[in-house]
Amino acid sequence: MKNSRRHFFKQAGAGMMALGVSSALPAGKLYGMAKKKGPAKPDLFNVAVAGWTFFKFKLEPSLDMLERVGAHYLCIKNFHLPFNSTPEQIAEFHSKCKAKGVTGYGVGPIYMKSEAEADDAFAYAKRVGVNIIVGVPTFEMLPYIDKKVREYGYLYAIHNHGPGDKLYPSLESVYAKVKDLDPRIGMCHDIGYTAMLGQDPVAETYKYAARIHDIHIKDVTKASEEGKDCEVGRGVIDFPAFIKALRKIKYKGMCSLEYEKDNTDPIVGLAESIGYLKGVINGTK
Amino acid sequence: MKNSRRHFFKQAGAGMMALGVSSALPAGKLYGMAKKKGPAKPDLFNVAVAGWTFFKFKLEPSLDMLERVGAHYLCIKNFHLPFNSTPEQIAEFHSKCKAKGVTGYGVGPIYMKSEAEADDAFAYAKRVGVNIIVGVPTFEMLPYIDKKVREYGYLYAIHNHGPGDKLYPSLESVYAKVKDLDPRIGMCHDIGYTAMLGQDPVAETYKYAARIHDIHIKDVTKASEEGKDCEVGRGVIDFPAFIKALRKIKYKGMCSLEYEKDNTDPIVGLAESIGYLKGVINGTK
Repeated sequence: MKNSRRHFFKQAGAGMMALGVSSALPAGKLYGMAKKKGPAKPDLFNVAVAGWTFFKFKLEPSLDMLERVGAHYLCIKNFHLPFNSTPEQIAEFHSKCKAKGVTGYGVGPIYMKSEAEADDAFAYAKRVGVNIIVGVPTFEMLPYIDKKVREYGYLYAIHNHGPGDKLYPSLESVYAKVKDLDPRIGMCHDIGYTAMLGQDPVAETYKYAARIHDIHIKDVTKASEEGKDCEVGRGVIDFPAFIKALRKIKYKGMCSLEYEKDNTDPIVGLAESIGYLKGVINGTK
Repeated sequence: MKNSRRHFFKQAGAGMMALGVSSALPAGKLYGMAKKKGPAKPDLFNVAVAGWTFFKFKLEPSLDMLERVGAHYLCIKNFHLPFNSTPEQIAEFHSKCKAKGVTGYGVGPIYMKSEAEADDAFAYAKRVGVNIIVGVPTFEMLPYIDKKVREYGYLYAIHNHGPGDKLYPSLESVYAKVKDLDPRIGMCHDIGYTAMLGQDPVAETYKYAARIHDIHIKDVTKASEEGKDCEVGRGVIDFPAFIKALRKIKYKGMCSLEYEKDNTDPIVGLAESIGYLKGVINGTK
């Protein structure tokens, strides 16, 4: 018995990445692995959750939900950590996250309509200790954002918001405005909004690969304005093709679930969505 | 816009199977499908839930949970539909299931220690209108079960219960007792218990393929007696390899999630588990 156990169940502790996906998705499951050439390469991207998912919840219950669904990275929204937080308040925030196994990896989305708002946002990101800002700047602010990005060295990911968004409905509309700016200014690709424009999130991912710095994962019931948010895997987006695309473009950022259905009780749908996403990630390895 | 929508978002209504997996997991997601030779073949198996998952809940809240996690098949336990139910009570049960989009596909596990208990169980299955019984018979009862299976034409799936089970710890122990009986007497493969014996659920699935009539899906933290139930995808079982095995053996039965962690509040872990399983199913197509 002991021999057969060793054969099938070697634990891959030493070989595992220190990052979130690998701890949530042990790469070292070795049933039948003897038939393969070797363990699959660890992914460069990680599974995360966008703070907006919890816009009706305070920080503590949000962290409880993240812990329960096994999520280790959070894009921080200001309702959980206000822009004017003191260093002490920021330290307390990080301490609460750490206790639940969660790391805040970025901030936003943050709307920026003036130089003062942009200054505040970059200073806030610096105090929080992250190097990626998900932003929604006015067109007029872009040259100033370009200057700030060069000053701070951060990634700046503009969030597309689909039909009805007059500034940035699509990745194409972001690209048109940022293509001549510092390449660290790019996109937070909200694939749900891309689908709601009738565009293919997979094709758009390939097209704008170099500028995609963050991703909001969701699924929608229809590939049109009438599409409603739904559990990931139940809608129209082809997640296996999408995950394969992320590997091909060597995407190194976060895949942040932004679950907007059931916003007063999101945990069940969030759990299904994160399970589905992890299942696709492991199933396509 | 309309043209591009048509190109990427064709709905696969007409081509979809009438069965549960395909409605839960639209096979017709057509992003990027133009690159493929054609849509993947529908699977022969379906995702389901084992009634034991809800052993602390009455029927109605159990059905609410099934509906919320998008599960369409249930293996019926007698605490939800007692053995002595009248035809009226059975009709009411089916009506309640139907209202939540759920079909009871089998009954059990049912322990059978006497001919009278076996008689009752087969008569119950017939009244319920299913053709598969998950059973745990004493060894002495097996010749009588063989007779009943020939009489009714039902599948009879013996549930392995891992370390500590003196009758049927493993698939091998079931096979040793049933190999000379009618082939409709086989196994309900509980892959968690197989793993807890230190055996490889994938290899066991290939080995006993012809006799696997039902499956209980779970995951465990360790491949030993010390293993604890956990959310599917977080434990030691290699689900991509397992799902690929089911396709190779042309398994036509149910994959019934039996989620035993958090038994007073199972829905969150069940949702993650069903999401993960569906993600692996779609990711390995």
